[in-house]
Amino acid sequence: MTQELEVMFERISFCFETRKFADLRILLLDMEPADIALFMEDNLNEKEQLMFFRILPKELASDVFVEIDTDLQEILIKAFTDKELKAVIDDMYLDDTVDVIEEMPANVVKRILQNSTPEDRKQINELLEYPEDSAGSIMTTEFISFSPSTTIESAFEKIRRTGVNKETIYTCYVVDRKKRLVGVVSVKDMLLAETNALIADVMDSNAITVETLEDKEQVALKFSKYDFLALPVIDREGCLVGIVTVDDAVDVIQEEATEDIQKMAAVLPNEKPYLKQSVFSTWKARVPWLILLLITSTFTSLILASYEQKLNKISTVLLAFVPMLMGTAGNAGGQTSVTIIRALAVGEIEFKDIFKVMLKELLVSLCIGLTVGVICFAKIMLLDNLYSTIALNEAFVISLVCSISLIMAKLVGCILPLFAKKIRLDPAVVASPLMTTIVDALALIIYCTISLAIL
Amino acid sequence: MTQELEVMFERISFCFETRKFADLRILLLDMEPADIALFMEDNLNEKEQLMFFRILPKELASDVFVEIDTDLQEILIKAFTDKELKAVIDDMYLDDTVDVIEEMPANVVKRILQNSTPEDRKQINELLEYPEDSAGSIMTTEFISFSPSTTIESAFEKIRRTGVNKETIYTCYVVDRKKRLVGVVSVKDMLLAETNALIADVMDSNAITVETLEDKEQVALKFSKYDFLALPVIDREGCLVGIVTVDDAVDVIQEEATEDIQKMAAVLPNEKPYLKQSVFSTWKARVPWLILLLITSTFTSLILASYEQKLNKISTVLLAFVPMLMGTAGNAGGQTSVTIIRALAVGEIEFKDIFKVMLKELLVSLCIGLTVGVICFAKIMLLDNLYSTIALNEAFVISLVCSISLIMAKLVGCILPLFAKKIRLDPAVVASPLMTTIVDALALIIYCTISLAIL
Repeated sequence: MTQELEVMFERISFCFETRKFADLRILLLDMEPADIALFMEDNLNEKEQLMFFRILPKELASDVFVEIDTDLQEILIKAFTDKELKAVIDDMYLDDTVDVIEEMPANVVKRILQNSTPEDRKQINELLEYPEDSAGSIMTTEFISFSPSTTIESAFEKIRRTGVNKETIYTCYVVDRKKRLVGVVSVKDMLLAETNALIADVMDSNAITVETLEDKEQVALKFSKYDFLALPVIDREGCLVGIVTVDDAVDVIQEEATEDIQKMAAVLPNEKPYLKQSVFSTWKARVPWLILLLITSTFTSLILASYEQKLNKISTVLLAFVPMLMGTAGNAGGQTSVTIIRALAVGEIEFKDIFKVMLKELLVSLCIGLTVGVICFAKIMLLDNLYSTIALNEAFVISLVCSISLIMAKLVGCILPLFAKKIRLDPAVVASPLMTTIVDALALIIYCTISLAIL
Repeated sequence: MTQELEVMFERISFCFETRKFADLRILLLDMEPADIALFMEDNLNEKEQLMFFRILPKELASDVFVEIDTDLQEILIKAFTDKELKAVIDDMYLDDTVDVIEEMPANVVKRILQNSTPEDRKQINELLEYPEDSAGSIMTTEFISFSPSTTIESAFEKIRRTGVNKETIYTCYVVDRKKRLVGVVSVKDMLLAETNALIADVMDSNAITVETLEDKEQVALKFSKYDFLALPVIDREGCLVGIVTVDDAVDVIQEEATEDIQKMAAVLPNEKPYLKQSVFSTWKARVPWLILLLITSTFTSLILASYEQKLNKISTVLLAFVPMLMGTAGNAGGQTSVTIIRALAVGEIEFKDIFKVMLKELLVSLCIGLTVGVICFAKIMLLDNLYSTIALNEAFVISLVCSISLIMAKLVGCILPLFAKKIRLDPAVVASPLMTTIVDALALIIYCTISLAIL
């Protein structure tokens, strides 16, 4: 939090506590809704939150409501009178209302729907039917559309008349009589055109579109690739049913990155901010993978136990290097799998690139394997010999295994996510925690086999 | 790549190969610059690329140039005549020109500057002086500004006159005579106002701003928090020096997430797309951490070697569980450190939350420790006893160590990133790969100590 914001929060607290509500309103009018929401969440108790919300200037209330977290939204809705609820909902954009509804229990949803206009209710119900991660689920139906034969002048009139309730006015859409999308026109182009020109003359008739059922991650990637402010969403018949705006795309990009990071770290995705998660929900998100990985580690114990006696006869020294070898293989495999998972997520590579990727990883891992093998040998002779006596041939075997298992780990690390993607599994889930188990087991087998063969 | 785009690429290839350049131009006019860039990179050789670029419709050339990758940009610039270079540069936004310049060798930079207008050259030089990750480095100086006493009507006139060269016209800025920012006004507000109203009447005088030296990651977070299309950048005197637009913020968000993911996986950040990196640069990005982690693993070998003889007397069985224990501790610590690193990156928590975070992690890790400990005991008795003979007290020690080292790992995993942030080191670098080493060593010490004490 910036210092400026802290000072502001103190002033608000002071006005609120001393009941200087007129001053408070003036202060609040200068603030961003997201900051007011933050203030309410962090500085007020439940009773104060409701009171504070009622003091908010009317024009801010719904903007703040959209920004506060789900738990508080639910508390407020339950405390609202029908009139208050209706006022907030009427002022919210439809996609935001849908976001709120998706997080609420059934009785609260019912109240929200009862207090919406029949027209809104119909659209909300349509939006609610789109699958969770689809373009439809993040779009809004409040956009501005023209027919191709509209003049620039009357288009501006329409914007002035209806624009205040639309999520964006800067990109407008051109549809034919059957509501099929025929073009996109920006306010910039309209401002730079003659007032008596037709929309058809200035519109771009080859708009990039998304389909209602397209994955929202793909939609977000289109924003990052093409630098749009909004993208039109069309149904199978080519009819314009909604738009996705860039602010929603930004949220999707942030959320998807967080989700992928969680999955790579063997945590089940959890949408709530860290400090708002209950101990139980954090437990629930973390324990499954830990248990699964614990159980799969039976393989490594099994391998070690079965080779132990044979290896013990040769040298107890070798066992001290097991963690180092498994660690190096795990790190090397992780480097590759995480790189590939991210490259898949941002659309840099696809399954068809598998041979390019494998060739590249093979070359890279040969170079890295050689480097790390040589340094491993030097480390053993110079460092580990200080506290233990390691024969030259033992050091050689350990370094050789280090190189080989590193190369193996990198190949597993690049193949797994690509195949996961191919069979429509989530690369981040399949490839990252699971890879460790496979790589660990393989590294151990390589170690034991080579040790037995050479020593 | 979508099927639609593949079809388009085939048609372009056909027109280009059969030299139907008029048809080709018509096709290209319907395409997005980013897609044309992709086509040039993936389907043409060096000679064809230059030829293709020269065929591009004039109005598309600079837009496509911005989208193609650095290597190709350099090749093209070197092949351009001065006139061609000047035409491309004149059409580019200044922040894009600066991005290009930053990646080019000195002689190419010199040519670019020679072919810019004196006014542009001055601004480019100013932009080049901002530190790499600052707001200044991603801003553009091409914005629209008014004085507060401008009428809406003359403001629109100014937009019509100058807007075509500005990166955004939808958010305009209001400055006083000393160029100090006094307000922000959106085209939406201007459209909805009376034409004879003054800018001062419709502007928002409490604009959120960023400073030139602010970290670009912080700037991107402001976009995701406040849903802006552009943010004004001011210097220390409060003067407006540039703006950052949302498309650049989207790129920063993507890049920063990729960077953090790379760092967590012990890879040095590399800005180039995966397939464009040379084998050498991939080697260079991966080898340092692998070597560092290899050398620090000397500790685990040292610990194992020093306890080995004592433990061997008790039971060789215990050694078979070392990978499982270290793996569980590593996974558990990774879950926490990665969660905390991400929460820090998206601004959910700060250092001052350290006690809240530690308390939470303690509670969570106690719950997880208990769960995993019990399951570990069951697994040993049911699964591992199938291939090995493990005494009840040995199983107890292993499960106990599993729980304790898991709790320890989670606490290390939450403290390390927070302290890294506090002393202004990068949490992702310090906390993720380094944590493994610390946790591995601690887990081993706990294991050996408890085994010796109980068995």
